[in-house]
Amino acid sequence: MRGDASLGEARSVEVALGERSYPIRIGVGTLARAGPELALRTGAKRAVIVSEPTIARRYGATLERSLRSAGLTVGRALVPSGEKSKSLREAGKLYEALIGFGADRSTAVVALGGGKVGDLAGFVAATYLRGVPFVQVPTTLLAMVDSSVGGKVAVNLPQGKNLAGAFHQPRLVWIDAATLSSLDPRERAAGMAEIVKAGAILDAGFFACLERDVERALALDPDALVPILERACAIKAEVVEQDEREMGLRMLLNFGHTLGHAVETLKRYRGILHGEAVAMGMAYAARRSEELGLAPAQTATRLVELLGRCRLPTHLPPFPRNAYLAALRVDKKRRDAHVRFVVLRGLGRAETMPLTPEEILPVGAMATAARGTSRSRRSRDGR
Amino acid sequence: MRGDASLGEARSVEVALGERSYPIRIGVGTLARAGPELALRTGAKRAVIVSEPTIARRYGATLERSLRSAGLTVGRALVPSGEKSKSLREAGKLYEALIGFGADRSTAVVALGGGKVGDLAGFVAATYLRGVPFVQVPTTLLAMVDSSVGGKVAVNLPQGKNLAGAFHQPRLVWIDAATLSSLDPRERAAGMAEIVKAGAILDAGFFACLERDVERALALDPDALVPILERACAIKAEVVEQDEREMGLRMLLNFGHTLGHAVETLKRYRGILHGEAVAMGMAYAARRSEELGLAPAQTATRLVELLGRCRLPTHLPPFPRNAYLAALRVDKKRRDAHVRFVVLRGLGRAETMPLTPEEILPVGAMATAARGTSRSRRSRDGR
Repeated sequence: MRGDASLGEARSVEVALGERSYPIRIGVGTLARAGPELALRTGAKRAVIVSEPTIARRYGATLERSLRSAGLTVGRALVPSGEKSKSLREAGKLYEALIGFGADRSTAVVALGGGKVGDLAGFVAATYLRGVPFVQVPTTLLAMVDSSVGGKVAVNLPQGKNLAGAFHQPRLVWIDAATLSSLDPRERAAGMAEIVKAGAILDAGFFACLERDVERALALDPDALVPILERACAIKAEVVEQDEREMGLRMLLNFGHTLGHAVETLKRYRGILHGEAVAMGMAYAARRSEELGLAPAQTATRLVELLGRCRLPTHLPPFPRNAYLAALRVDKKRRDAHVRFVVLRGLGRAETMPLTPEEILPVGAMATAARGTSRSRRSRDGR
Repeated sequence: MRGDASLGEARSVEVALGERSYPIRIGVGTLARAGPELALRTGAKRAVIVSEPTIARRYGATLERSLRSAGLTVGRALVPSGEKSKSLREAGKLYEALIGFGADRSTAVVALGGGKVGDLAGFVAATYLRGVPFVQVPTTLLAMVDSSVGGKVAVNLPQGKNLAGAFHQPRLVWIDAATLSSLDPRERAAGMAEIVKAGAILDAGFFACLERDVERALALDPDALVPILERACAIKAEVVEQDEREMGLRMLLNFGHTLGHAVETLKRYRGILHGEAVAMGMAYAARRSEELGLAPAQTATRLVELLGRCRLPTHLPPFPRNAYLAALRVDKKRRDAHVRFVVLRGLGRAETMPLTPEEILPVGAMATAARGTSRSRRSRDGR
C-alpha cells in the first residue's frame, strides 16, 4: 500500500438519518488524524478505545495519541479475540471497564478492530447508561463495508449469533485502508464477499467495476481499493437510509445470508469465515434464482466467476438436506413457516421472496450446489 | 375496591411519540379484557408473559386466558422476585426462554408485575433480535404511574442500578387498578411518592387535588384513584413526549432522585423502598430550594405534609455528609463535576440546576434534614 502519496485518496460518504446522520471517512494512512473529527462528532471529552490484543498492539497507540492530541482523555479496554468474545459475559466486563474509567453519558466508545469488536463495543455503547456516543474504526475489509455502517450491534447467545442486540448508529466511521495491510489474505477475500454482494443486489455498474478491478483491490492498490470501499459504503448507506430498522429494503442485504448462516451453524462456526459462508450462500441463491425462472442465464455464472477470482468458495458443504432445513427453520428472520429469501432478478436487482425452507432447498438442490462447485473450481483453476 | 360497578371508570391516556405512540388504558377489573387490544397494538400472534411467582399465581391465568381468547399463542417465563432479578444474568435466562418458546421478531413480550419485572422484561424486549413488541401490565402503583410509561428499561450491574438499558417504548400499557388490592400498604405509599412528585414538579392543580384525595386514593377508592392514575400518567406522558431521550425536560422527573439514589446506595437497597427514598430526596430538595431562595416559604412544608399523610419518610438517614457526597459523585446523571439537581421554584414548577455535590449538601445540611425530620414527625403525629 502506498504511503503519504495516497493521502489524497481520502473520500467521504454521508449516512443521512436525520439527527442520527454521520459520515464515513475513507483514506489511507489516516488513523493518526482521527482525533479532531471524533471529538467534534461525539462532543466527548473522554473516550474508551475497545479493541482486541493484536489490533491494539498494532494500532492502539496511534489512535490513542490522535485522540489525546484532540484533547480527549483516553482509556482502553481489551476484549479477547474471536467470536466467543461477542457474549453477554464480555459485555458485562466491558460495562465494568467503562464504570471503572468513570465513563458518563458523554463518554465515547470507540471500536478499533473487526466486526466482532464493533458489534460487541456497539452493543455496550447502545446500552451503557441507555446509550453513549459510539465511533467505529474498522480494521478489516468486512467491517469497513458492512458491519461498521448501519448501526446494527449485537452479542451472540449460546443458541445463536446476534440474538441480543440493538440499532445504535455510530457518530462517525473512520476507515484507514492502510490497516488492511496486516489482514490475512483469506480475511480480505471474505470481506470482498460482502462487497460483491452490494454490487450483486443493487448496482450492476459496480458489479462490472469489480469484475475489472477485484484483484488490484485485493492487492490493496489504493487507486482500485479506495473507490471500491467508497462505493460499497455508499450502497450500504443508501440501504440503511431508506430502511434503518430492517423492515424492508434492508432485508436485501441478507442476500446469501440465509444459506450462509445455515452453513455457519452446521459447521459450528469452525473453519469458515462469515464472508466465505456468504459467498456459498450467494452462489446458491443466484443459481436458485435462475432455476425459479427469476434471473436470466449467466447471472449465477458471472457471480460465481467473480467470487472464484476472490478465491472464495461457491459450493455448499455436503451436509444432509435435512440438516440444512433444520438450520433454516431457526433462522431469526423467519416469520411463521416462511423465510424471506433474497433472490436475484438479475445482477444488481435483488428482491425478497417468502419461501419455505423446502422451497429454498428442493429435493435435488444439493446436486445443483455440487454442479456449481465444479464450475467454480474450473474458474479458479483457469486463472 | 369496587367490582363490576367500577368498569365505567375506564380512562385512557395517549403517549404521542409519532410512530412509537401508544395508549395507556386505565380501568378497574379490566385484566381479563386485555387480549384484543394487546393483539391489535402488537400485531403479534404469539406472546410471552414475563412475571414473578406471586404475581403470576394471582393474575397470570386471567391475563393468559384473555390473550388466548384473542387468538394468541401464549408462553410464560418466571423471574425471581426482588431487585436482584434485574441482572444481565436473568436477562440471559429470559433470552433463553424466548428462544425456547420459538419467539420471533413479531412475538410480544408482556411484563406482568412491578417495575423490576417491567424493566427487566423491557430490556430483553428491547434487545432480543434487536427489539420485539413490548407491553406493560403493571401491578404496582409505582409501575403504573412511573416505570411502565416512557420506555426506559434497564438491568442493574454490580456497580449500580439501571446502568445497562435502553429506550424501548411499549406498544400498550394496560393498567387494572384492581391488581393494587394485593399490594402491601407500604408499597402503595411508596408508589404514591412518584405521584406526588408529578404534581410537585409540573402541576400545582394536581398537587392540590392530591392534598384533597390522597387518603381515599391510598384506600383504593376508584372514584379518587382512577382520576389520579390518569392525571399522573398524563403528566408523565407529556414529559416523555416532549423529551423522549431524557435530554432536558425529562430530567425534571429526577426530582428527589439525586438524594434518593444516594440513600438507596448508602443503605445498599436494604430496608427501603424506592418511593420512600424518593420521598426523602424530594423533601430535602424542596427545603434546599427554599434555602437557595428559589422557592417561596411553605413549598417544602406543604410537600412534607402531603408525604407525611402518605406515611412516607421525609428525613435523610443519618449517614455522614462525606458518605452522601461520595454517593452523589457516582450518580450517573453527573456531567463532569456537576450534578443536574432538580429544584422547585414553587409547587408545580421545577427546573434543573447544575450544582456540585458540595452545593447540594452544604456543611450543616444534615442539620436541616434533621429539622425536616421533626417537622415531618409532627405532621404525621398530628393527623
